[in-house]
Amino acid sequence: MSFAPVYLDWNATTPLAPEVRDAMLPWLGAAQPARFGNASSRHEYGRQARAAIDEARARVAAAVGAHATEVVFTSGGSEANNLFLKGAAACLKPGTLAISAIEHPCVREPARQLRRAGWALHEIAVDADGRIDVADWQRVLEARPTLVSVMLANNETGVLQDVATLAREARKAGAWLHTDAVQALGKIEVDFRALGVQAMTLSAHKLGGPLGAGALVLDKRVELSPLIAGGGQERGLRSGTENVAAIVGFGLACQRAVAHRAAEASRLSVMRDGIEAALSALGAVVFSRAAIRLPNTVFFAFDAIDGETLVGKLDRAGFACASGSACSSAQPEPSHTLLAMGVDPTVARGAVRVSLGRDTTAEEVERFVATLSHVVRDLRNLASVAL
Amino acid sequence: MSFAPVYLDWNATTPLAPEVRDAMLPWLGAAQPARFGNASSRHEYGRQARAAIDEARARVAAAVGAHATEVVFTSGGSEANNLFLKGAAACLKPGTLAISAIEHPCVREPARQLRRAGWALHEIAVDADGRIDVADWQRVLEARPTLVSVMLANNETGVLQDVATLAREARKAGAWLHTDAVQALGKIEVDFRALGVQAMTLSAHKLGGPLGAGALVLDKRVELSPLIAGGGQERGLRSGTENVAAIVGFGLACQRAVAHRAAEASRLSVMRDGIEAALSALGAVVFSRAAIRLPNTVFFAFDAIDGETLVGKLDRAGFACASGSACSSAQPEPSHTLLAMGVDPTVARGAVRVSLGRDTTAEEVERFVATLSHVVRDLRNLASVAL
Ligand SMILES: Cc1ncc(COP(=O)(O)O)c(C=O)c1O
Ligand SMILES: Cc1ncc(COP(=O)(O)O)c(C=O)c1O
Repeated sequence: MSFAPVYLDWNATTPLAPEVRDAMLPWLGAAQPARFGNASSRHEYGRQARAAIDEARARVAAAVGAHATEVVFTSGGSEANNLFLKGAAACLKPGTLAISAIEHPCVREPARQLRRAGWALHEIAVDADGRIDVADWQRVLEARPTLVSVMLANNETGVLQDVATLAREARKAGAWLHTDAVQALGKIEVDFRALGVQAMTLSAHKLGGPLGAGALVLDKRVELSPLIAGGGQERGLRSGTENVAAIVGFGLACQRAVAHRAAEASRLSVMRDGIEAALSALGAVVFSRAAIRLPNTVFFAFDAIDGETLVGKLDRAGFACASGSACSSAQPEPSHTLLAMGVDPTVARGAVRVSLGRDTTAEEVERFVATLSHVVRDLRNLASVAL
Repeated sequence: MSFAPVYLDWNATTPLAPEVRDAMLPWLGAAQPARFGNASSRHEYGRQARAAIDEARARVAAAVGAHATEVVFTSGGSEANNLFLKGAAACLKPGTLAISAIEHPCVREPARQLRRAGWALHEIAVDADGRIDVADWQRVLEARPTLVSVMLANNETGVLQDVATLAREARKAGAWLHTDAVQALGKIEVDFRALGVQAMTLSAHKLGGPLGAGALVLDKRVELSPLIAGGGQERGLRSGTENVAAIVGFGLACQRAVAHRAAEASRLSVMRDGIEAALSALGAVVFSRAAIRLPNTVFFAFDAIDGETLVGKLDRAGFACASGSACSSAQPEPSHTLLAMGVDPTVARGAVRVSLGRDTTAEEVERFVATLSHVVRDLRNLASVAL
């Protein structure tokens, strides 16, 4: 095929924004003046690397209304989530940990590791639209958890949680609240202070930045034991030679994502609404449609059409979308988010996610909708022939 | 200054090899055909990312005589060292852990975390040249350690350990041996099978590859609990969206480092010997001179000249070297490697490391030696004036 497939999987990862790449290239020696160096080195190369990291740290902090000293750089979102959960737990006596039932595996799995290490684990139920169930949340608070983790925006449905309220109530109950804001940053407003959380996870590659950088934004009163101990980088919370190019790219990506957020959100939501209208006309169910959601995400299913099959057909027709959650790799089980919402496993097996981004055009969306109609019609015809 | 300083700190980090960068650029969207994608995605973008990672995995494995399925990609050397120590310990009852007294902080610090978690920790003594002390090693084996970690090449002195023999003896005593080969790969031959170790750490940015990629090469019989749990990437041992560009760069850097190793080793050791001859003539002590060492590393001190001061003067004169260990950041204490060797702290405070690499030329080394002579003479004159 001579045309690149249309990319409709921006929640899985994003292509680097060209400006971000340009800012990174000198640190890869591919633009003048060439830069490289270990930021711990006490010579000219090292000092330049340190200065670039400092600037990026200020940019990331500014994008989320935090202080630069609250930003701990990691290799990505998965590391930041693990760092918070395991790092905080290591400084506490085993107690109760609560996470929502729809967290990304990189929150769920470390939580399960902690359960094996003696923590009580509560999975907070969600309602049929994927929002935290109020009654279950109250029950969880009564269990006096020490640590709570609830994501700001879900990677599959795009559903947003009222994290500010949850954080206020958690604090009153004596718990620290961490939020995974990986899918939120750049798509909705994210403000560390306004949310009132003690910790927040970010990832660069979801917002036009590079793979290889993420952050845990952390209230300084929270004590953490490092996941990666060693040379003492990142205030002793994350050792390892700093990935300067990726951190520089992350800083700029944050700055840009915030600057373009409002305009992008309305542009993308118009296209998203168009896709949803077409899906309804074709008889699909759109998950979490009644909930407040990210502007770029549509999660849907067609009755009696397998999600994998549909994604495969769309792939061959030149459109890249996700079945279930592309982030959680090789498991062919239906989405745990949908199951937690009470969606029937047969319906959940049909799930397909379309997520839009910076380069998505109205023309691409139009072509996608036309192709989808054909593909769905074909699959239905096949099914009726088979009967 | 219009000339870039001469870089003599290749053990701290290396500039990207141009060919490595060229292989990475398509994955940063900066060369045709542009590539990007989440390797877990089941569409064309994802499949291309997966294929690129597979190829890189085969290259890393080939460079160290391992099988591709034994390579677990991480964000770097510090993560790989932490992954082995904590990950193996998490699958075992607390027992005895032995590390050499000269390990990098990213082995020493996780070992100390394990000590706080109930493990007995032995630091294996080294002799005056920085080699594992045979008598202490025997004592350590008698303590029946479960896990042992001894580095293949020291980052400061460049001293090599006879890891193959240690691994054989450790195995007889019922212990698993891990070796940190971060400074060894590309400078000496590194063969996973010949060494007979159960685990080995590598890092891309020390051998002309990018920051952001490293590996734990791991015997499949060793059970590990992941440090970063989540989506299940890297056979469940290291979750997180794979950093495709960095992994691609790592693979090529390994391939190149091995191809050029022998020629580079003799080229660099000639220059290294020249520097050492000059240092002797100037009255410096060269640490570990009697030991078998990396071909590119010189660690030395001048009587009554502070290492920091000397590195500062050299920096202003256009030469980038390290005082003590540049990897272990902001601590101004004298090198723990030298202290373990029994070097007097006053002498250790004078330590300066020069490490050569791919771009180092004989002309640069000549200029360095001339500048060093002047700087040392000036500092000595100052000192005698002050008397
Ligand atoms: C909600 C959420 N959290 C965390 C992650 C993990 O981030 P990373 O890929 O940077 O490890 C992802 C995506 O993979 C995600 O969608
Ligand atoms: C011997 C040794 N091990 C491990 C590391 C850590 O590797 P990385 O910087 O990739 O985390 C370094 C250098 O920093 C090192 O010299």
